[in-house]
Amino acid sequence: MRNHDPQFNQFGKLHHFLTLDGLDKETLTGILDAAEGFTGVNDKKIKNVPLLRGKTVANLFFENSTRTRTAFELAAKRLSADILNVDLVTSSTKKGESLLDTLRVLESLQSDMFVVRHSDSGAADFIARHVSPSINVINGGDGQHAHPTQGMLDMFTIRRHKGDFEKLCVVIIGDILHSRVARSGISALVTLGTGEVRVVGPQTLMPADVETLGVKVYRSIDKALQGADVVMGLRLQNERMTSATIPSSGEFYRTYGLTPERLKLAKPDAIVMHPGPTNRGVEIAGSVADGKQSVILEQVTFGIAVRMAVMSIIMGHGEAVREAEQAAS
Amino acid sequence: MRNHDPQFNQFGKLHHFLTLDGLDKETLTGILDAAEGFTGVNDKKIKNVPLLRGKTVANLFFENSTRTRTAFELAAKRLSADILNVDLVTSSTKKGESLLDTLRVLESLQSDMFVVRHSDSGAADFIARHVSPSINVINGGDGQHAHPTQGMLDMFTIRRHKGDFEKLCVVIIGDILHSRVARSGISALVTLGTGEVRVVGPQTLMPADVETLGVKVYRSIDKALQGADVVMGLRLQNERMTSATIPSSGEFYRTYGLTPERLKLAKPDAIVMHPGPTNRGVEIAGSVADGKQSVILEQVTFGIAVRMAVMSIIMGHGEAVREAEQAAS
Amino acid sequence: MRNHDPQFNQFGKLHHFLTLDGLDKETLTGILDAAEGFTGVNDKKIKNVPLLRGKTVANLFFENSTRTRTAFELAAKRLSADILNVDLVTSSTKKGESLLDTLRVLESLQSDMFVVRHSDSGAADFIARHVSPSINVINGGDGQHAHPTQGMLDMFTIRRHKGDFEKLCVVIIGDILHSRVARSGISALVTLGTGEVRVVGPQTLMPADVETLGVKVYRSIDKALQGADVVMGLRLQNERMTSATIPSSGEFYRTYGLTPERLKLAKPDAIVMHPGPTNRGVEIAGSVADGKQSVILEQVTFGIAVRMAVMSIIMGHGEAVREAEQAAS
Repeated sequence: MRNHDPQFNQFGKLHHFLTLDGLDKETLTGILDAAEGFTGVNDKKIKNVPLLRGKTVANLFFENSTRTRTAFELAAKRLSADILNVDLVTSSTKKGESLLDTLRVLESLQSDMFVVRHSDSGAADFIARHVSPSINVINGGDGQHAHPTQGMLDMFTIRRHKGDFEKLCVVIIGDILHSRVARSGISALVTLGTGEVRVVGPQTLMPADVETLGVKVYRSIDKALQGADVVMGLRLQNERMTSATIPSSGEFYRTYGLTPERLKLAKPDAIVMHPGPTNRGVEIAGSVADGKQSVILEQVTFGIAVRMAVMSIIMGHGEAVREAEQAAS
Repeated sequence: MRNHDPQFNQFGKLHHFLTLDGLDKETLTGILDAAEGFTGVNDKKIKNVPLLRGKTVANLFFENSTRTRTAFELAAKRLSADILNVDLVTSSTKKGESLLDTLRVLESLQSDMFVVRHSDSGAADFIARHVSPSINVINGGDGQHAHPTQGMLDMFTIRRHKGDFEKLCVVIIGDILHSRVARSGISALVTLGTGEVRVVGPQTLMPADVETLGVKVYRSIDKALQGADVVMGLRLQNERMTSATIPSSGEFYRTYGLTPERLKLAKPDAIVMHPGPTNRGVEIAGSVADGKQSVILEQVTFGIAVRMAVMSIIMGHGEAVREAEQAAS
Repeated sequence: MRNHDPQFNQFGKLHHFLTLDGLDKETLTGILDAAEGFTGVNDKKIKNVPLLRGKTVANLFFENSTRTRTAFELAAKRLSADILNVDLVTSSTKKGESLLDTLRVLESLQSDMFVVRHSDSGAADFIARHVSPSINVINGGDGQHAHPTQGMLDMFTIRRHKGDFEKLCVVIIGDILHSRVARSGISALVTLGTGEVRVVGPQTLMPADVETLGVKVYRSIDKALQGADVVMGLRLQNERMTSATIPSSGEFYRTYGLTPERLKLAKPDAIVMHPGPTNRGVEIAGSVADGKQSVILEQVTFGIAVRMAVMSIIMGHGEAVREAEQAAS
C-alpha cells in the first residue's frame, strides 16, 4: 500500500510531508529519533549544520503565521539552506497569475523545497501533485485538514516527557471539528500505539464520525481528565466564538476551560500542551498555561528540531530522486 | 563613444547595467558567456560561489515584483552576497524622506550594489547618475523604458536553443509600445546581428518610429510568423485591456493571440518565449504556453545565471574603481 | 550602584542596552573603542567576522524604520549572526496574542538577542525585565525615551572628528522635549565629560527640568552657536508642525533653522550632525545638510560599527551567563 501514498516516491521513501495519515509507526519514530539528534545541534554554541547547504527552501505562506513561518525559517537556516520568504497574499494575485503559474516560476527559480501554509484544506496536496518530482513539499498547515509538523512536535514533546506511548492516556480538549492540530495529533497518537486517546468538547465542535479515528469521546471534561498523562488544549478560533457554534467564550471556559482545579483531576505529573497562541480565560487559565505542568513553550522550541528532522529526511530522499534523474538524463 | 555612455566607468568598463542600448556585441556576448559558466554552478549540488562574499546588494523595489525580486535575490545569494530587501513603497515616504536622501542613507550603509525596480521610465538612470561612484546600479525594470536583464536572459535562451543569431528570424508579438521587455529585446537582437527581427501588433500598441529600431513591422500575425525560429509573446497589461487602446481581450486574442494553429506557421522547431506572467487566452493559448515548443520556464531559470553574470561583471569592474580610489586616498 | 542597573547582569557586566543613563565613562569608551575596531572590518573587502556565528538576532520592530532596521540587520550580518525580521505590527495582534506571549514564543524559538523598536517609552525596558536571562535586549528607540545606539554613534562621530570631549562645545537645536535622540545624546555627552553642552529651541519644545541634565539652555540660536565645535540638529516630527506646539514650519526655520549664515557663528571647523531623515528648509538648510561641514551620512556609516560593538559586547556577556547557567544545570 505504501507506494500508493502520494507522500512516498518511487523508491518507497518519504518525499512530501503533507499529512500524518498513512505514515506508519516506523516512519514517525524515525522522525522523532532524527529530531532528537537535532536538539543537540540547538544546544551547541554554533547551531548550524551543513546538511542543506546550497539548497533553497521557499516559504509559501498564503496565510499569515509569524510563529510557524519563523520556526521553518530557523530550521532551514540551522540546516544551512537558503530561504525565500514568498508572501503570496499580496504579490502574485495582483498580476492575475494563477497558483500553478506561480509554482512553475518558483520551480524554475530552482527551489528545492516548498513549505506551504494555506487556509484551504487540501492546498498542500494540490501543490505536491503538481510540482516537479524533484521538489519536496511540506504542509505547514492547510485549512482544517492537517498540520503534520505540529503533530510531530507534539509527539516529540510527549515522548520526551513521558516515554512509551503505549502506557499513556492523552486527552484533547475543545474544538476538535475545525482543528488541523487535533487531526494530525490524533493520527500520530493512534499510529504510535497510545494507550488511550480521549477527546472532549461541545457537541457542535465534535466531528460526527470522530470515534472512527480511534478515540474515545467524552462529554464531561472532568471525567475525561481523570488519570490523564497528557492534556492537550486547542485554540478556539475567534470566528467560532462570535458565531452561534458556542454560546460564548465565558460559557466555553466554564464548561471546558482548563482550570487549575480541573487539572488536578489528571495525574499529578500530567503535562499540559497547547499549540498556541492561547486564549487565556477561554480554553485555559493563565495560571495553567504558565504553570509548572505546562510544556507549551517547550513545544515551540522542539518545533525547530522536529522541522529540521522532517526537512533533512525528505530532502535526503529528494536528493536520491534528483540523482536518479540526472543519471538517467 | 563608449566612454560617454553613463554605464561605463573611467576605465571604459561596464559599471552600471541600465539599458542594452549602446552596449556592443562584445559586451553582450561576454555576459552570455559568463552566464553559461554560472548555469554550471546552478546544476551543481552546492550552488554557491564566493564571488561577491562580503558584498551587500540592496534590492530597491519601488514596484512589486515577486518574480524579478526573487531572481535577483537568488542570484545574489548564489554569489554569496548579503542581500537587503528594501521595500520603498511603504517605508521612506512615510517620513517624507526624498528619494535622494534614501539613496544617500543606503550608500552610507555600505551597500555595494543597487537593484532598482520602478514604475517611472528613467528611474534607474537617475539613481545611477546620483549614487557614489563605487556603487553599481542594475535596472530591474523602469517604466516603459528598459528591462536589460530580461533582455539578456531572452538572448541567453535563444542562443542556447538556436545558436548563431545571424541565421535567425525572431518575431515579437503584441504591445510593443508599452513594453520595456520588447525594447530591451529588440536592442539586443539587433546588436547581436539577428538575421531578421519582426514585430506585429495592433497599430495603437506600435511605436510610431519602430522601424528605426531595425525591425520589420507586420500587421498580420500570420505573415509575421511564417518561417520564424523564435516567437516572443509580450504581456498585455490589464490597464490596456480596460482602456480604449484595444477593443477587448477577446478581440486581441482573435487577432493576435498565439494559438496552436498560428504557431504551425512558424518553423516546426521554433521556440515560444514570454516574459511572464502570461495571460492565457489573451496573448497566448494555454496549450502553447505549456506546449513542447515553449521555453517560458527555462527563461526564468536562465534568469538566475544571467543575473549572476551581470552582477559579477559590473561588481568586478566596480572593485577596480574602489581599489583605484583607495590607492588614491 | 552598578549592580542595581537592570542593564547589568549578576557579574556586573552590561547585558542589555536600553539607555545610556547610568552607564559610566569607562563603559561608553569601551563601546567606542570596540566600534573603532569594527570600522576596520567594514573597510576590508570581506566585511564579515564570525563573532556571532550561530546566534539568532530577532528584529522586533513595532514601529517602522527602514534606516534603523537595516543598520541593525547589516551589523548582525557583519557579525555572521542569523537575523529574523519580525514584523509585529501586522502579525501577532491579528490572533490576539499578547506581547508577552509573543516574546515567550520568540524566546522558545531560541533567539539570542532582541532588537526592539517601539513607539511607547519604556517598551524595551519592559521587554528586558520579562525575557529569559540568557537573552540580550537592545533598545532600537522607544517612544520619547531613549535611542542609545543613535547616541553612541553620535559620540563615535564626534570623537572621530574632534577627539577629546572635555575641550568641546556641543550645541543641540530644536525639539529637545520629544527627542529620544537628544536624551541619549545629552546623557552620553555629559558622562564623557564634554566641556559644554548647550540646548536651544522653542520653549514649548524644551523640557521644564532640562538644566538638571547638565546642559545650558539658550533661547537664541545665534548665541548658542557661538564658538561651537559640534552642531546637532534634531528631526522636527511632522505631528508637532501640524499641532499648535510651534507656529509653523516656516516660522521654525526662521527662528531655529540651521542656515549657512548661522553656521558661520560656530567655529570654522565645526561639524554638523543630524539623526535623519532631515526636513530641509525646516530644521536645516539643504546646503548645510549637504555641505562640507556635514557629517550626517558618516553618522549612518558609523552606525554599523557602533551597533556591531554593542551587539558583540553584550552578547559576549550574555555568553558568560549562558555558560554559568549550563554549568549549574
